[in-house]
Amino acid sequence: MLNFDFQNKTEIIFGRDTEDRIGKEALKYGKRVLLHYGGGSIKRSGLYDRVMKKLKEENIEVFELAGVKPNPRLSLVNEGIKICKDQGVDLILAVGGGSVIDSAKAIGAGVKYEGNVWDFFEGKAVVEDTLPLGVILTLPAAGSESSSGSVITNEDGWYKKSFGGNVVRPKFAIMNPELTYTLPKYQTAAGAVDIMAHVMERYFTNEENVDFTDRLCEATLKTIINNAPKALANPEDYASRAEIMWASTIAHNGLLCTGRSTDWSSHNIEHELSGIYDMTHGAGLAVIFPAWMKYVYKHNIDRFIQFATRVWDVDYDFNNPEATALEGIRRMEEFFTRVGMPVTLAEAEITDNRYEEMAEKAVGTGTMGGFVSLNKEDIVKIYELARG
Amino acid sequence: MLNFDFQNKTEIIFGRDTEDRIGKEALKYGKRVLLHYGGGSIKRSGLYDRVMKKLKEENIEVFELAGVKPNPRLSLVNEGIKICKDQGVDLILAVGGGSVIDSAKAIGAGVKYEGNVWDFFEGKAVVEDTLPLGVILTLPAAGSESSSGSVITNEDGWYKKSFGGNVVRPKFAIMNPELTYTLPKYQTAAGAVDIMAHVMERYFTNEENVDFTDRLCEATLKTIINNAPKALANPEDYASRAEIMWASTIAHNGLLCTGRSTDWSSHNIEHELSGIYDMTHGAGLAVIFPAWMKYVYKHNIDRFIQFATRVWDVDYDFNNPEATALEGIRRMEEFFTRVGMPVTLAEAEITDNRYEEMAEKAVGTGTMGGFVSLNKEDIVKIYELARG
Repeated sequence: MLNFDFQNKTEIIFGRDTEDRIGKEALKYGKRVLLHYGGGSIKRSGLYDRVMKKLKEENIEVFELAGVKPNPRLSLVNEGIKICKDQGVDLILAVGGGSVIDSAKAIGAGVKYEGNVWDFFEGKAVVEDTLPLGVILTLPAAGSESSSGSVITNEDGWYKKSFGGNVVRPKFAIMNPELTYTLPKYQTAAGAVDIMAHVMERYFTNEENVDFTDRLCEATLKTIINNAPKALANPEDYASRAEIMWASTIAHNGLLCTGRSTDWSSHNIEHELSGIYDMTHGAGLAVIFPAWMKYVYKHNIDRFIQFATRVWDVDYDFNNPEATALEGIRRMEEFFTRVGMPVTLAEAEITDNRYEEMAEKAVGTGTMGGFVSLNKEDIVKIYELARG
Repeated sequence: MLNFDFQNKTEIIFGRDTEDRIGKEALKYGKRVLLHYGGGSIKRSGLYDRVMKKLKEENIEVFELAGVKPNPRLSLVNEGIKICKDQGVDLILAVGGGSVIDSAKAIGAGVKYEGNVWDFFEGKAVVEDTLPLGVILTLPAAGSESSSGSVITNEDGWYKKSFGGNVVRPKFAIMNPELTYTLPKYQTAAGAVDIMAHVMERYFTNEENVDFTDRLCEATLKTIINNAPKALANPEDYASRAEIMWASTIAHNGLLCTGRSTDWSSHNIEHELSGIYDMTHGAGLAVIFPAWMKYVYKHNIDRFIQFATRVWDVDYDFNNPEATALEGIRRMEEFFTRVGMPVTLAEAEITDNRYEEMAEKAVGTGTMGGFVSLNKEDIVKIYELARG
């Protein structure tokens, strides 16, 4: 186990009707709130009206910035920074999923920084302070509601970059599983894959003697495997929606990688798919993760066998341990297929070959990956394995 | 799953040599520190000298209060409160295990309260503020290094009571597994049982649909079951010491009971044993937990079957499911025996019968237990089952 520091101050407010507490929670930070959200879904569902009512009851002045898109944009972040500065906003309230929260995190960091907020993403500055951020989560997937990071796309060149730090974590996250009842099946399934991917990026490590966090990872994966099909079969099943929602937070709040090195190649390889083809991130991960596994499993076959036996209940094949590892990968693909995700580029209807271009953009002449180091040629081969 | 609020702000600083950071960590809170500890073990091990050196390097003025005993006493707490008030202490630094940390928590709460600190334990007041508390942990067991509670014994009547609240959690906990190398085998084993007990008090719940936290509990239990024998066989095995230490914190930091009701009868029944016979808490739990299980398992036999199959790898007996549940309890006893713990009162050399007196003191005319409600007669029967 590696030495580590771990602290996560986000207050989780979880359960039925918890969004009704938003007025009193927001008031702890001040009377001027920037409400940040995406499109019309929170208006159609009635959540927008309920939130506004609770804020008004506390005489909170609300400024609004809607229009966050998947792969949230820097231009909107800059717009938010301007509003917060001009209006003396006390708290940013992000109502939505990971894109809205990531956008709000960047706004919060930018408000407290003299320079250009993109400096944080380019590593030219380290975030030291942010405007307080509260969340009402509507999509369990990204884990941004208590994570320390944010991913933003700069339209000037279409660079997708991340920044982070402990101060970036939201102050509180209101999580009512009922708010996820109306999610389309595709979003539910893509969210489930994203959650699993957050765990798997941490699970495949070169660090030995990480028994406890291994088991916590396996527990989180099994929770998603067990509950995602139930939520898809019955979208208003509170129990499975709640399990998925709480697991989504723990998957990415920093606990599961305490004392471990991590990988993150699959995320970076996928980013090019969502960048070029506008794929849903979770769907892209369902395509890339199996290919990545097939490409790297021989690096530590025992770890893939552990993954197969403990997560996917594969019987250990004493005559052919490698078959055990491969059966684990096969069952993962089968699961992704079962929940309605593509597992090849062909299934995702991506039939052109821009592998070289994407690999170049992902890694250039460098390498990526904490578990297995990959260069451009490796990444091209992974796209080829994903072709289908 | 029940609605819940969860927040744990304790900063965990984990790994080799991390105690060397104490000077700079303490300085964040001020230049006047109360060093609180037990007896001579931290002096014999050299930890005391290393800590003092680091504090002095930052020109921190150190006041000392030693003498914390297992089942920490109110009189020492009051002494600590006086020192902190008289000397204008900025930070309490607890160096030790659960007793030292619990004592420090009570001191910290008392300093910020006008009345008698015992009011908190009697429910006459609710803690709202405390002096900052830092921890250097030397014994993984109680989980007090990031928990919200404290248990103190009032010598005036020998009442053992607890109080707590989110503000009671330590600000930081320095956890170096190497500091546990010198623990006697008995303390290592008793600590392991205490950790497992913290999980099991949460595991046995009447709340349904708690899949994720069930699995997190099972992961934590399996970690202790896997690693405690290794640490006993090789006291300087960093890997197993680290797994146990990190699991001890998570077992009791509040995560594993999110959304669940809990039990806590076994802890309360055990408290009378440690109170009257001065038993080590973990050893007392090794005696009480099997007896409690045998007494209550029919209340929800499926949960005990899950415990047996998932935690103890018992094959499900399709012809006799009850036998599956009982085999789980038997394997737990076998494990406690293997690590050198007593599993009956006889093995703990308690042969007199003060069951009525202890049951009366534990519950009076009331009841206890969130999983199964127990009255005085039930508790007497549990002591009888524990007799051996």
